[in-house]
Amino acid sequence: MVRLIPKDTSFFEMFAAMSNNLIDAARALVDLFADYHNVESKIEDIRRIEHRGDEMTHSIMRKLNQTFITPFDREDIHTLASSLDDVVDFINAACARIVMYRITDPPAEAGQLARLILAQCEELEKAVSHLQKSDDVLRHCVEINRLENEADQVSRVAIARLFDHETNPITLIKIKELLEFLETATDKAEDVADVLETIVLKNA
Amino acid sequence: MVRLIPKDTSFFEMFAAMSNNLIDAARALVDLFADYHNVESKIEDIRRIEHRGDEMTHSIMRKLNQTFITPFDREDIHTLASSLDDVVDFINAACARIVMYRITDPPAEAGQLARLILAQCEELEKAVSHLQKSDDVLRHCVEINRLENEADQVSRVAIARLFDHETNPITLIKIKELLEFLETATDKAEDVADVLETIVLKNA
Amino acid sequence: MVRLIPKDTSFFEMFAAMSNNLIDAARALVDLFADYHNVESKIEDIRRIEHRGDEMTHSIMRKLNQTFITPFDREDIHTLASSLDDVVDFINAACARIVMYRITDPPAEAGQLARLILAQCEELEKAVSHLQKSDDVLRHCVEINRLENEADQVSRVAIARLFDHETNPITLIKIKELLEFLETATDKAEDVADVLETIVLKNA
Repeated sequence: MVRLIPKDTSFFEMFAAMSNNLIDAARALVDLFADYHNVESKIEDIRRIEHRGDEMTHSIMRKLNQTFITPFDREDIHTLASSLDDVVDFINAACARIVMYRITDPPAEAGQLARLILAQCEELEKAVSHLQKSDDVLRHCVEINRLENEADQVSRVAIARLFDHETNPITLIKIKELLEFLETATDKAEDVADVLETIVLKNA
Repeated sequence: MVRLIPKDTSFFEMFAAMSNNLIDAARALVDLFADYHNVESKIEDIRRIEHRGDEMTHSIMRKLNQTFITPFDREDIHTLASSLDDVVDFINAACARIVMYRITDPPAEAGQLARLILAQCEELEKAVSHLQKSDDVLRHCVEINRLENEADQVSRVAIARLFDHETNPITLIKIKELLEFLETATDKAEDVADVLETIVLKNA
Repeated sequence: MVRLIPKDTSFFEMFAAMSNNLIDAARALVDLFADYHNVESKIEDIRRIEHRGDEMTHSIMRKLNQTFITPFDREDIHTLASSLDDVVDFINAACARIVMYRITDPPAEAGQLARLILAQCEELEKAVSHLQKSDDVLRHCVEINRLENEADQVSRVAIARLFDHETNPITLIKIKELLEFLETATDKAEDVADVLETIVLKNA
C-alpha cells in the first residue's frame, strides 16, 4: 500500500544503520544477563553503542537541514530518528542502574525482558527496511505491540514475585527499578512502531 | 467553530463506542473502591473491559487502512484512538498493582481519584461526541484539565499523609504506586483532551 | 534558513513572555537551593510563577481560537505552549515534593540540577526569540540537549551516592524522588527543544 518514491535513498540507509545499531545494543544486553560476568566492561560496550546511536541521530538531523526534498515529511524523519534513539537510551539507562545500584544478582526475568527487547528490535529493523517499498510495516508493528504486552506481563509477575520474597526495602527498590527500565525500553520500541504506523498512514 | 464534514460517520461511531467503554472501566473502578469486596473478580472485569478497548482500537486501525477519505487527518484518528486506549490501560495498570502487591486496604483517596477519573471520562465522551458538529469540544477539554489539577492535589495530599503515617517502607511503596497510577490515568485523560484540542485547531 | 513571515507578531511576544516566566521559575529554584531558608515561602513564590504560566498558556490558546492566520502551524503553537508549560510544571512538582516529604536537607546535587535547569531555560528563551528570524534556533537546541545529558549524569551520580550512604529507606525514597523530578524538568526542556526543531524543520 505504502510505496514511497525514494527521493533520497540515503535517509533509508541511515535508518537501517540506526536499526542495526539498536540490534547491537539489544544483543549485548541479552549477552550481559545470559553470562553475568565482566559486567562493567559489557555495560561500557553498551554505553559506546548508545553513543554511536547519538552520533547517527545527529547525522540524520544535519542531513535533514541540508536536504531540500525528503522521502517523507521532514518532521517525521526527525521523530523517527529520535524515537529510535530513545530505545537505545533506555537500554543504556537500565544498564546504568546496574552500576549505580551495584546489582550483583539480577532476577531471571531481567534476561527474559532483554530477549523480548531484542525480538522487538529485530522487528523494528524489518519494519524500517520495508518503509521504502511495501505495506509489511504494519505487520511488524503489530508484532512489536504484542511483544510489549508480553514484556508487561513478565515484568508484573517479576515485580509481584519480588514483593513476595524480598524483605530488604532498599534491595527491592533497586531490582524493581531495573525491571521497570527494561520494561520501559519495550514501551519505547512500541513508540517507534507508533511513529512508523503514522508515517505509513500519512503516505498511504 | 469546528464543523467537520462527516465524510465517514462510522469513525465517529467507533470513537463513541471507545468512550463508552472507557466510562465502563472508570465506573467499575469507582465501584471497586466504593465496596472493596470480591476484589479479584471486579479487577478481572476491568481487565476484560481493557481487552475490549484493545479490540476497538485495532478495528479503528483496520478501518483506517481500508478507508480512502477520512473525516479528519488519518494520523489524528490514529493518535486519538491510541490516546483513548491509554486511559483504559492505566485504569487497568492501577488495578494490576492491587493484585501484584496484594493491597487489602487502599486509602480513601484511591476512591476519590477513581471518581475524578470517571468525571473526566464522562467529559471525554461528551467532547468526542461533539467532534463532528460544534465547538463545545474545547469547553469539555478545559474541564478535563481542571479535573486533572484536582487529582494532582488529591494525590499529593494523600502521599504526604502516607509518608506522615506509614512506617513500613514496603507498604509505603505499594500504596504510593497505586495512587501514582491512578493519578497518571488522569494525566492520560488530559492527553486525550490535548489530542482533541489539536484536531479542533487543525480543522478550525 | 528558517525565515518565518511574521504574520502575527504577538504570538512571538506571548512566547517570549512564557520563556521569561520560565526563567523566573528556574532562577527562584536556584535561589531556593543556594540559600535553603524560608523554604515554604520561596516554594509558594514558585507556585505563583507556575500559576502565571498556566494563565499565559490559556491566553495563547484563546488567541489561537480567535486568530485566522497564524505565523506557523496552529497545532505547533499549541504544542509549543504546552511543552513550555510542562517545564514550569515540573519545577513546581519538584518543589511540591519538598513540602510533601518535609525535606529539610536536600543534597548538593539538587542545587547543581537547578543551575542546569536555569541554563536550559536561558537557552530556550534565546531559541524562542530567534524563531521568527534565523537559524540560530537549532544551535540553542543542541546546547539544551547537551545540558540534559549533563543533568542525567549529575542525577545518576547523586542517586548512586545516596544508595551508598543512606540506610533509611524512607529518606532514600524522598531524596531520590526529588532528584528525579529535577532531572525530569531537564527532560521537559529537551522536549521543548524537540518541538522547536520540528517547527524549524517544517518551515525550512
